[in-house]
Amino acid sequence: MQVAGGRTAILAGGGTLPLELADSLIRRGGAPDILAFRGFADRRTCKRAREVADLLDVRGIIDILRRWGPERVVMAGGVHRPGASAVLSAVAALRNLDYVTDLMRSGDDRLLRGVVDLLEQEGFSVASIADLAPDLLAPAALLGHVPVPAAAETMIALGAAVLTAVSPFDVGQAVVVNGSRILAFEGPEGTDAMLARVAGMTRRTALRRVEPGGVLVKTAKIGQDLRIDMPVVGPATLARAREAGLAGIAVGAGRTLILSSDETIAEADRRGLFLLGAPLGGSA
Amino acid sequence: MQVAGGRTAILAGGGTLPLELADSLIRRGGAPDILAFRGFADRRTCKRAREVADLLDVRGIIDILRRWGPERVVMAGGVHRPGASAVLSAVAALRNLDYVTDLMRSGDDRLLRGVVDLLEQEGFSVASIADLAPDLLAPAALLGHVPVPAAAETMIALGAAVLTAVSPFDVGQAVVVNGSRILAFEGPEGTDAMLARVAGMTRRTALRRVEPGGVLVKTAKIGQDLRIDMPVVGPATLARAREAGLAGIAVGAGRTLILSSDETIAEADRRGLFLLGAPLGGSA
Repeated sequence: MQVAGGRTAILAGGGTLPLELADSLIRRGGAPDILAFRGFADRRTCKRAREVADLLDVRGIIDILRRWGPERVVMAGGVHRPGASAVLSAVAALRNLDYVTDLMRSGDDRLLRGVVDLLEQEGFSVASIADLAPDLLAPAALLGHVPVPAAAETMIALGAAVLTAVSPFDVGQAVVVNGSRILAFEGPEGTDAMLARVAGMTRRTALRRVEPGGVLVKTAKIGQDLRIDMPVVGPATLARAREAGLAGIAVGAGRTLILSSDETIAEADRRGLFLLGAPLGGSA
Repeated sequence: MQVAGGRTAILAGGGTLPLELADSLIRRGGAPDILAFRGFADRRTCKRAREVADLLDVRGIIDILRRWGPERVVMAGGVHRPGASAVLSAVAALRNLDYVTDLMRSGDDRLLRGVVDLLEQEGFSVASIADLAPDLLAPAALLGHVPVPAAAETMIALGAAVLTAVSPFDVGQAVVVNGSRILAFEGPEGTDAMLARVAGMTRRTALRRVEPGGVLVKTAKIGQDLRIDMPVVGPATLARAREAGLAGIAVGAGRTLILSSDETIAEADRRGLFLLGAPLGGSA
């Protein structure tokens, strides 16, 4: 486990995670500096950022980090759904486009892996959120008040087994299981879009082909470098899971981040879904 | 391999497969009788059917088959996308609804597995299309004139490996691979909907996250009972694959059906996609 002391540069993508990480570091005496990616980072993140940069302007990002000279660099927040300004700024960053498109072609994992490699080549130490802010990780416990139905336990075990089976491949980190059936594997579309797909399967009447009561199982792959693309669950995940007719969500304890933890747990209770942190395949 | 002689009862769902099977049997001296499922079977299939029945009226279907007394029964054509009349007729079949919804809850494979078990309990012999009409199966050959690019060969091997890895689970029989990445697993939504999803990933500009050039890999699961739910590729699959930006399609030789074979191959050539029958995982 790395210490959180000294200055930490947070490369900030979308969502609330960058600020949750910053606050967690501050609580424990750390000193975060946020470098926000234009078009990805939230307005609140940009407001608290020390600087804002274009994701594709790799050279510019490295220059900023050199000036800052942090103890460590950590990536937080998605770079999956670019806003309009990210697309516009991509044009401004054309000088690095070849390098970045090469990386992008090779898949999410490899793209972010490439960023980590590049940062390390430049002499920066790259840390994981899991090490820096263990308070953001799912514990091995039932979160919230909705118990796990007996039928769901079998589904969770099945979901963990199938995630383990596909772990050697560059594929998503979540599945939806219903009964003995795998309803959906997560691909680059992400968890929310996957859950919307499942909602379409459960919504039908009369000859509806899927009954409600399934489970979302989500955890980091076995052997996953937790410095890149850690799986995340937040309040919105619970809303989507409810729409998909699920009974609840199981996440890998110590290998999944719970965003806005209090709010997420309250949301699970309010919607009547269980939220379980469990030692799934690959968990410590 | 079963002989095709004597009377064969075809339980006919959607698409062109039921009539292609009937014609294949007739060409080789067989005598098919079509029992078309109302709301699923095409108009042309219904026109040539000896009788039409409600899918949910299990008792009625068994009664018809008893009257017919066929040498064997075979299921052909999808029952995945019910039309309005299938939903309406479900109401008429309420007396069997408990039994059928129990089956439906347990997943595609198990539903059809349940139908096979029921037919066998009633003393019927259930055959596979693969045995009855091997001319409808994908051969181990390059179909059409578009060669397989070297990069695609690696993707096909990867797709076959990942399908083998998930083979023990009740999950779809197709994946889309792009580079080293699994873009999509087929779930109950079917191949066309999966390809539409991939089309959405390749369509973006600027920060588009997926380059064109991927491959659809489709084959029966290892240990799959080929009497139920054999994977199928047809002209529409090529159209969807083109829209998804794919370079081509690889199917398990002897373990996948090619619908309207001439038309499908012409479609592959016209759209510039390769169409390969290959001994993928589980192939004989």
